[in-house]
Amino acid sequence: MTANPQAPGHNDYVPGYAHIKHHEWRTAENSAGYLIPVVQSKVEENAAIKLLDVGAGPGTITVSLAKYMPEGQLIATDLSDAVLEKAAVFAEQAGVKNIEFQAADIYALPFPDNTFDIVHAHQVLTHLDAPVAALKEMLRVAKPGGVIATRESDLRMWNFHPQVPGVVRFHETMLATHAAGGGATDAGVRLVSWAMKAGAKRESITASMGTWCYSTPGERRVWGGTMAERARNGEFRKKALQVGIATDDEFEFMAKGWDEWIATEDACLGCMHGEILVRK
Amino acid sequence: MTANPQAPGHNDYVPGYAHIKHHEWRTAENSAGYLIPVVQSKVEENAAIKLLDVGAGPGTITVSLAKYMPEGQLIATDLSDAVLEKAAVFAEQAGVKNIEFQAADIYALPFPDNTFDIVHAHQVLTHLDAPVAALKEMLRVAKPGGVIATRESDLRMWNFHPQVPGVVRFHETMLATHAAGGGATDAGVRLVSWAMKAGAKRESITASMGTWCYSTPGERRVWGGTMAERARNGEFRKKALQVGIATDDEFEFMAKGWDEWIATEDACLGCMHGEILVRK
Repeated sequence: MTANPQAPGHNDYVPGYAHIKHHEWRTAENSAGYLIPVVQSKVEENAAIKLLDVGAGPGTITVSLAKYMPEGQLIATDLSDAVLEKAAVFAEQAGVKNIEFQAADIYALPFPDNTFDIVHAHQVLTHLDAPVAALKEMLRVAKPGGVIATRESDLRMWNFHPQVPGVVRFHETMLATHAAGGGATDAGVRLVSWAMKAGAKRESITASMGTWCYSTPGERRVWGGTMAERARNGEFRKKALQVGIATDDEFEFMAKGWDEWIATEDACLGCMHGEILVRK
Repeated sequence: MTANPQAPGHNDYVPGYAHIKHHEWRTAENSAGYLIPVVQSKVEENAAIKLLDVGAGPGTITVSLAKYMPEGQLIATDLSDAVLEKAAVFAEQAGVKNIEFQAADIYALPFPDNTFDIVHAHQVLTHLDAPVAALKEMLRVAKPGGVIATRESDLRMWNFHPQVPGVVRFHETMLATHAAGGGATDAGVRLVSWAMKAGAKRESITASMGTWCYSTPGERRVWGGTMAERARNGEFRKKALQVGIATDDEFEFMAKGWDEWIATEDACLGCMHGEILVRK
């Protein structure tokens, strides 16, 4: 499997696997808070629960979830072998031994029906051209009584201060590039609808909205630094250049915009994500 | 004091005091979650803490906060006597006896310096033409070591599905009317900046982003019903008509848009708010 393979008939992972600095900042607490009480409740019923984390990337959320289910079993999948190898190293360094890493296509998960107590995906459906098919597959491998959990950005919903022109342009470029790559920029607010299209009943779905917020100097460096790097070297930049959404000069303008934003002492940025829990 | 007085030299409360259905849905848990651990921590130090809730409106958040500090004292202020009378009735019905209700101007709070352990405001600064002056006044009445807490909408940050044209138009009209009335549509993301302008050091500020999310039939009726009512009868409608932002026909189109959104089984809507805790 290559570093960024295309699932047959489906679109690429537009952000690319090379730059995952911000992904590594993610934990269950800051990115799957809505799921933690569900894990705790399942573990109370049965300590040996099984959790599938689909599109786990560098595995930081998986490792963080593992701490809530020390006697449980986790499987973390991703399309990319390279990112999973890195995730396995991260898990080992964290002393977490109950995660198995396995390359898998979300549209054809290599597991029998009714296998997992919890099936989780974070910022995965937003990148897919067929999110409903992916949700159907996640529902298939969940046990009856199990829970599907997914948290997806609404990429339109970035608020930031100050309105640095390079950052404004970056946001516009990101939205256009994401859409051009086959993803949905409004995934977060469509999760209820997608889950219903995948066969879930409305009354089996609990929806919420989560956020990330960056304002301290350290937070600004993590977020703004990742975005500046994407503008200078990322797969996102390549894709945008390829489809003619932005030029080299514009990307330099955007990167400098992030540098300026990071250096602004009263800066702040928020992002909003949709979250659903679906009881099978 | 009249039902919707203007603070001397400042702007009106544009939404008006007549229609506060959604305000009544608000609790500490759904609207001040970021503050609850602070209240709990202060109460552990001293059960008899003093909390000032500025612009408390119908008082549902105040009443809800009072439960976390049963031996504490709360003062709830608002410009409107009428809304405070209603709030007092609500507190009585809830069996909460430690809240005093008092009309007050946020720009000239009738309290000595260094009086309160916690000074809280929810969706207040967003309506003001001088939010920094208001924050200075909140800081003045807080004790050294006390905390200022405020949560304010970023009104631009509404994501909703489906994109019903009447709801899209309502959102555009609300933003324009809010700005025309002297409020800031991006208050949520400017809180860090405003607090620093009011004299707080960056390292004394903790910022976060909170949300509301509406998707169940009951939630859709609370939010969509309140918005439809505002489009049909609210002060917001009067203001928009007065300044020529929308017509009667357009408001009927918007109200019907909300009716349609409420009736859509897979509908969802999120709003993002900024939140800050400032240690004095």
